[in-house]
Order: sequence, then C-alpha cells, then structure tokens
Amino acid sequence: MKPLPDALQKLVGESVDAIDTPALVIDLDAMERNLTRMADFAKKHNVRLRPHAKMHKSAALAQLQVQAGAVGVCVQKISEAEILAKLGVLNIYVSNEIVSLSKLERAALLASGLAERGGKLSMAVDSLEGIDGLAAALEDALAACVDVYVEIDVGQGRCGVTTPTAALTLAQHVHQHDVLRFAGLQAYHGKAQHLRSAAARRDAIERAVEQVVRVREVIEAAGIPVDLVTGAGTGSMVHEAASGVYGELQAGSYLFMDADYAANERDPAQPAFEHALFVKAQVMSKSADHVVCDAGHKSHAIDSGLPKVHVLAGGDAVAQTFGALEFASGGDEHGILRGARLPPLGEAIWLIPGHCDPTVNLHDYLIGVRGGLAKGVVERIIRVDTRGALT
Amino acid sequence: MKPLPDALQKLVGESVDAIDTPALVIDLDAMERNLTRMADFAKKHNVRLRPHAKMHKSAALAQLQVQAGAVGVCVQKISEAEILAKLGVLNIYVSNEIVSLSKLERAALLASGLAERGGKLSMAVDSLEGIDGLAAALEDALAACVDVYVEIDVGQGRCGVTTPTAALTLAQHVHQHDVLRFAGLQAYHGKAQHLRSAAARRDAIERAVEQVVRVREVIEAAGIPVDLVTGAGTGSMVHEAASGVYGELQAGSYLFMDADYAANERDPAQPAFEHALFVKAQVMSKSADHVVCDAGHKSHAIDSGLPKVHVLAGGDAVAQTFGALEFASGGDEHGILRGARLPPLGEAIWLIPGHCDPTVNLHDYLIGVRGGLAKGVVERIIRVDTRGALT
Repeated sequence: MKPLPDALQKLVGESVDAIDTPALVIDLDAMERNLTRMADFAKKHNVRLRPHAKMHKSAALAQLQVQAGAVGVCVQKISEAEILAKLGVLNIYVSNEIVSLSKLERAALLASGLAERGGKLSMAVDSLEGIDGLAAALEDALAACVDVYVEIDVGQGRCGVTTPTAALTLAQHVHQHDVLRFAGLQAYHGKAQHLRSAAARRDAIERAVEQVVRVREVIEAAGIPVDLVTGAGTGSMVHEAASGVYGELQAGSYLFMDADYAANERDPAQPAFEHALFVKAQVMSKSADHVVCDAGHKSHAIDSGLPKVHVLAGGDAVAQTFGALEFASGGDEHGILRGARLPPLGEAIWLIPGHCDPTVNLHDYLIGVRGGLAKGVVERIIRVDTRGALT
Repeated sequence: MKPLPDALQKLVGESVDAIDTPALVIDLDAMERNLTRMADFAKKHNVRLRPHAKMHKSAALAQLQVQAGAVGVCVQKISEAEILAKLGVLNIYVSNEIVSLSKLERAALLASGLAERGGKLSMAVDSLEGIDGLAAALEDALAACVDVYVEIDVGQGRCGVTTPTAALTLAQHVHQHDVLRFAGLQAYHGKAQHLRSAAARRDAIERAVEQVVRVREVIEAAGIPVDLVTGAGTGSMVHEAASGVYGELQAGSYLFMDADYAANERDPAQPAFEHALFVKAQVMSKSADHVVCDAGHKSHAIDSGLPKVHVLAGGDAVAQTFGALEFASGGDEHGILRGARLPPLGEAIWLIPGHCDPTVNLHDYLIGVRGGLAKGVVERIIRVDTRGALT
C-alpha cells in the first residue's frame, strides 16, 4: 500500500488545530459509540448486519464493523469489491446489478479469489440476462459458486422486479445454474429512509414487508427456499429489524450520521446515533453581512441539502449541534455563512455534511480525532480506499 | 509521475465501445474546436485569456490552453497551484483569498519556485490581514515578489470589498509592501454567468463594469495605477471582453461546455462552443416504464442540475444532442431513464453533465476520444492532476 503523504503522517499526534482546511474529520469517540449502538441493536433483534461500505469506502472501517459483529459488507460496484478484497475484506455483497461482460469476468475472478481465502462474493440480479451472464462468466473462469439475491422493487422505483411471478422466474433461473446459489431476496427501500415523519417510514416499510412476504410465499411454494431477505438503511431499519422477515440489515450511514438523517423525526426504537463526520473549514473572507469559508461543493456533497454549521467561534464543538450560523452555497470552493455573530477571519468552522456517502467520495483521507473537535488530537488517518471506484 | 493503470493504458487505440462505465470521456475534436474558438475570440477583442484550471484540473489541458495563447491559468487553491507548477505550468493566479499561515508559507515557497523557472505566482486579496500575512510569509522566506489583485464584489455576493474606498485602502496597503506588486483588480461576477436571459447577463455585467470603473478611478486618483482588471466566465465573457475595461478573461467551462451553460439563451457574440465532456454510462436494469444506468451522483455533480441524455440507442452520438430520454436521479450510483423508446440492457448511454467543474473533480482520468462518440477511438488518457486538491 502507498505510504501516507508526509503532511498527513506528521499530523498524527497533533492538535485538531493543526488540520489544514478543508478536510474531512471523524470524531472517533462518536463513531465508536455509533458502532457499538448498532451492534447492540442487531444483536437485540437477532438480525445480521452487513453495513454498506459505499458509505465510508474504507477497508479499515469495514474491518472495524466486522470486528463489531458485522457478517461482511455491501458495495455497489465491482471495483469497490476488488479494492476491499485486496485489503482483507473477505465477505462482500455487490448489492447491485451488473450486466457488462468485462465486469462479470472481474466478478468471476474475484469470487475465486475470495473463496480461496475463505471468503465469499454475493451479488444481486434482476434480469435473466444478468443471471446467464454471471453464470457464463463463472463457468468460463471455473470460478467459485456465487450467492445470488434476486432484487425486488419494494417502493424504491429503481432496480428490481415488481411482481412475485417475475421474482419466481428469476429465482428458478438462478436455481438452474450450478455455479449460482439462490440465497434469497434483495429488498431495499431507499426512498423510505428519507421520509421525514416516523409514521410515514413505518407505513412504507410495512408495505415493503407485505410485498416481500408475498414474493417469498410464491417462491417457496415452488419448492425453492428463501434463506434470507436483505435490505434496510439507517432511516428505516427499526422496522425491517422488527419485521421478523428481514434477516440482514444493510445500513451504512449510522456510523457517521449526516444532516439529512438527523432531520428525520426520530423513531423511539432508533439508537441515538451521533454526528461523527465533519468538514473542517476556515473563514477566509469577511464582509459586513457575511463571512466566506473555504469549503464548497468540492468538499461536501449537496444532493441531500447543504451542510449544517456545527460549532461557532470559540464554542465547544461537541456541545453545540447546529449553531446559529446559516450555510449558503458559495459554489465549488466557497461556503457563505450568515448569522447574528460572525466569526473572524481565520476561524475554524465545522460543517455537518448533508449526505455522508458522496461527501466521503470527494476525499482521499478521513482524519480521525480523539477527544472531541474542540480540543482533540489527531489519532489516525483513514484512507478512503475506494474513492472514485466507479466501475 | 505515477504510470497509468494498466487497464487505462491498454485502452489507447481501442474503440470507444471498450470504455468501461461509468467514465468521463472527452470528445477531443469538439474540445479542440472550442479551444480555437476561444483563442480567436480573445485575439479579436484584444484581451488576455487566463482560463480557470479549477474546471479541468489537468496540467496537460492547461498546457494546451497556453499553447493556444493563454497567458497562464487561474486556480482556486494553493494545492492546485503546487501540483500544476510541479507539472510545468509556470504562470498561475490563485484567484481566491488565502489567510491561513501554513498556506501562505506554501504560497511563498511556490512564488520563489515559479520565479526561478521564469514563471510567476499571482494572488487575490480582500483584507488587510490577508495582505499583511502574505507579505510576512514572503519576507520570511525571502521569496520572490507576488502580483496581487484586490478583489471587489461586483454582484457575486461572496468575496471582495464593496466600496471604492475599501478597495483603495487595500490597494494602498499592497503598495506599501515591497514584496507585493499591486497588479490590478479581481472582479468576477459568478452569478451573472447563469442568468438564463442574454439581456439579464448583459445588464449584470454593465453594472459590474460601472463599478469597476468607479473603483479604478478612485485608486488611480490616489496615484496607484490599475494595470489590469481580471474576471469573467463562459456565461458572460462577451460583455467583459467588449467592455474595454476588463483586460483578462478567466473563463474555463468553454473548453468542455456543460448542460447548464448550454441552457443559457445564447448571446449573438458568443462563440458556438460545443459539448465536449460526457459521462459514458450503461443500462444495467430494465423495468416496464424505465431503465437504470450505472451513473449517479458519484459520477457527475448535480449542483447545477441533473445531466442531459446525449444519445439514444443506436444513434449517432454527435448528431443527437439532448435525446428523448429523460434522466432522473437514482441516487449515488444509479440514473433512472424514462422515454418513449427505452434502450436495452447493456446499451451505452452518454450523459452531458449539468456542471463540468465538480464533475471532473469526481474522476481520476479523462478519456480522450477522436472521431466522435459513436465510432471513435481512444486517443489519449488525460490525468485529473488536481482532483481532490482542496487545501
């Protein structure tokens, strides 16, 4: 593995003040509390946890999740799986469809590589072509058997088949291939995660569960056991976990928590996840009615809204969630801050990103801080191993 | 310099069909026509061109622009300047404010490095603290003199001072430091670029020009010559160029053209820039009423809107601008496509990104294609050298 850049290596052991801006910073204490809360939650509900590594994109954090009881991780791209496998993550589920020949060949290679090391590759499918292509690639490469989940669309309106009959056809088709094992159903309702009202999320997952049950009945009536239903994200997981139908949770954002998930009305059953991911920025221009910081769309993703300002000048970073400064877009490299009390030039500004996944993808490194953002110390640098792994 | 990954190196000379998805692809023919049109435009209006390298983030493309007559490039970050300088770009203007001590030290180092190689570093300022900090860093490092532009806010509402008096104070302050040369005014109106109506853009720049003239008069009345006014972007540059007041254009997007700039009502004086930047994606899931492609927010930025679909299945990529497929957000890794005629699984989809700058920043490489997107050949791989250079 490439060594860390000097400037980052030197940062370890330094005060949080030494972190150059803009930078993506992890509050390690908060992250570890989130990790434990999630492990406890999964244990209590007797469900497996397979966190989505498309969020943190880091082998080190994947390993931390596995050590805390996760069965492995999900990814969305075969390139993410390849990189994480190389770095020692051995149980990987590509929870997404792949149809290109060259990608399927890579999947076959990866399946064998993981199997040789005692690991496993699993994949989602939603078409006959996808199933046949995968099987052919595995056969051509004399590759190890792959666990296959048939994706059903339970409300997301994206990938997956919509009827029990279509799901049965795919399950039977998987079943016919010796190199594939029909492992169950992929049933992820992404839209439900972001419904603000707790009741709306509960209703959406109730409908998803009903749909999963119908599909499962039809497939099992045809003599094919449905071993596992996998899905759920941080916003709705309390319902999937309590359903008795989902056996595996794919939640990822719980580890860092972003401003969008924090804006959801909290379900009483939801663990109290804390913000652990921040963009450290700096005030670099000051006018009569606003200041400008050095973090814009290239430092944080804005698909789920602009970041929230976490702490004011001189305040305690952890104590003051959502300070009185309002962040407005200043373009790719700037953020405009307004409020009754404007911080001075040079002041550090801590932002809570709107959406953690694509924000992490903008950075090569996460800077892990111990002891809080106000007075903490840099403990470790975590590489974003699969940043930009798109294929 | 790091060698290219094998898979990319092997792509050179291959057909466009061999490009794995999602990938950022440059239509080199279109890009070169844009390059020439812009060079001709600048020559005709007798203004200098200093394109913004925050857009393409590539030393190779910066050199291409310099070969076509550009005086150098702009960047927004000192880290961008450092990387481009290392790769041979010698005339660099950081068109942005820097106040942090460590960054100013880096600027001083860079100023000397560039001067030794016959180049030059220029910087923007909008505060007394910024000026003093820069001067102190240069003096401490016994560094070369830096050209300094005082930024005035001509309507952007971001950085820069708002009154002639404030600008004069800063100009005088720059003038007092032996290590700084007051080089003129930075007067960039970002918001004007994206006003849809040609008349609205003309009016906005008319007001900006009036403001520049007032500021210049006040500064020159105090005995300080204002050698250059620099600013303008692709959306409004016809007006700055014709003003007789702006001596340098900073436009960057002209090289690639994105869907947002294409949505502007075209001014008759504007060169006919073509789309040259595309995300190649692939259909990987198909339902009754939509298909899903493998490109989402991690492949293209959405701050200026979703991408437009450039070409339909089997069509000619260049001939069919804005095909009949509609792109809807499918999250970080997916795009949802709807239309009367849905392409089959595996079909290539070409997307025109909403905003080129942050889209390029999501990728490590640009794949340059010669001969059109439908039947062209990969000619070269262009590294996104300053991707993720945030500090």
